[in-house]
Amino acid sequence: MTDHHPFDSIRIVMLRTWHPGNIGSALRAMKTMGFSRLILVAPNQFPHEDTVTMAAGADDLIDHVEVVNSLEEAIAGCNLVVGTSARSRSFPWPMLTSRECGEKLVAEAQGGEVALVFGQETSGMTNEELQLCHFHVSIDANPDYPVLNVASAVQILCYEIRQASLALESQPAEYTDPVPYPDTRQMEQFYDQLELALGDIHFIIRQHPGKVMTKLHRFFNRARPEQEELNILRGILSRIRQNAKVK
Amino acid sequence: MTDHHPFDSIRIVMLRTWHPGNIGSALRAMKTMGFSRLILVAPNQFPHEDTVTMAAGADDLIDHVEVVNSLEEAIAGCNLVVGTSARSRSFPWPMLTSRECGEKLVAEAQGGEVALVFGQETSGMTNEELQLCHFHVSIDANPDYPVLNVASAVQILCYEIRQASLALESQPAEYTDPVPYPDTRQMEQFYDQLELALGDIHFIIRQHPGKVMTKLHRFFNRARPEQEELNILRGILSRIRQNAKVK
Repeated sequence: MTDHHPFDSIRIVMLRTWHPGNIGSALRAMKTMGFSRLILVAPNQFPHEDTVTMAAGADDLIDHVEVVNSLEEAIAGCNLVVGTSARSRSFPWPMLTSRECGEKLVAEAQGGEVALVFGQETSGMTNEELQLCHFHVSIDANPDYPVLNVASAVQILCYEIRQASLALESQPAEYTDPVPYPDTRQMEQFYDQLELALGDIHFIIRQHPGKVMTKLHRFFNRARPEQEELNILRGILSRIRQNAKVK
Repeated sequence: MTDHHPFDSIRIVMLRTWHPGNIGSALRAMKTMGFSRLILVAPNQFPHEDTVTMAAGADDLIDHVEVVNSLEEAIAGCNLVVGTSARSRSFPWPMLTSRECGEKLVAEAQGGEVALVFGQETSGMTNEELQLCHFHVSIDANPDYPVLNVASAVQILCYEIRQASLALESQPAEYTDPVPYPDTRQMEQFYDQLELALGDIHFIIRQHPGKVMTKLHRFFNRARPEQEELNILRGILSRIRQNAKVK
């Protein structure tokens, strides 16, 4: 495998990291698999000497780590967002196995930016954050002790991405370009337009969108419309609004 | 996967471990994947408090760790021995990829004892030790920085064994989805209602719905709305139609 520009369009995102040492361990795990882009969302402590220590020979990546305040910022411009999650019992969402996750990220990274998101060490991801993801990935583990260190989870999932990439290289001819998907900004515009349209027809009260918008957000994020489908949906919303105004 | 007697016939062997913390990290990695048998060959320090710290919730395995003086003792009674080796270019030997290693160990563990051997943190395995192995396994890594922590190597290879074991079991999913979904009749009613609403607002011409309905059909079928989500969507369509008629 050539590592000239390894996985440049795949960003690893860590949420509210508590122990700065884990950031270093994650960077080391990433670098062994050829990854270099880490974005931290509101880390407890960064920079920190424990990060440097645990990064070992991957300490050159520390200077390139980005720090932002929210998951929304971290995934800005991404066509695909996959969040790591313990097996969802109460929170049904499209699930990927760790292997499928590798294959999907490699396939979609050909045509755009993608993100793989890791939750806080103990509390994981909030429901709001989980709903920003198109898929959740769960690493199959011992049900009596499924407690993978966050750096171990980074190691396994980056390993699977690398494996999928190797498999793809060995059979490049069979690969077909993925369908274009809208990025997060376009989806936000769609949700804004949807809320305005539902206000126009008095399906929701503008000041109190309440749970309906949350549920629609969840539905359309999970549904993951393709670019062309989003265009149709936005065309419909536009017609609804024109129609309501004519009245 | 049932974890009643997980991989009892697969032993993990670590050679001349230098940092006692690595023994703990390896135990934690092993336990997350359902492994419990660790044999140490001439560890530098064991037992040690760093082992306990790094083992975290896998510290119950420490009491069961065996300590021996040589690799020969560690692999006594094994039908298959696989050694991890980073640098086998100069040492021609039957090689396995990490994935093949998982498959091979699972297959042969059905009929006897097998061992997976990890070398000393920096010096790896001696030539004599490498020659005691039937196969060598190498984890594909970034050629610029292939420096996996020994616990990370344990994590990945135990993960691959678990994945191979899951594939072997390949039982039908016992997981049942608790969320109610609409049936096909309800979906057909939804599509009828959608077509009427889009006609009402002149997004489509009633007589020639053309490709738009086909594309929306495809989108919503793929999206697979839950019952509650479909109710919201139908509520919106109902409002659109009322609104259009009032005009």
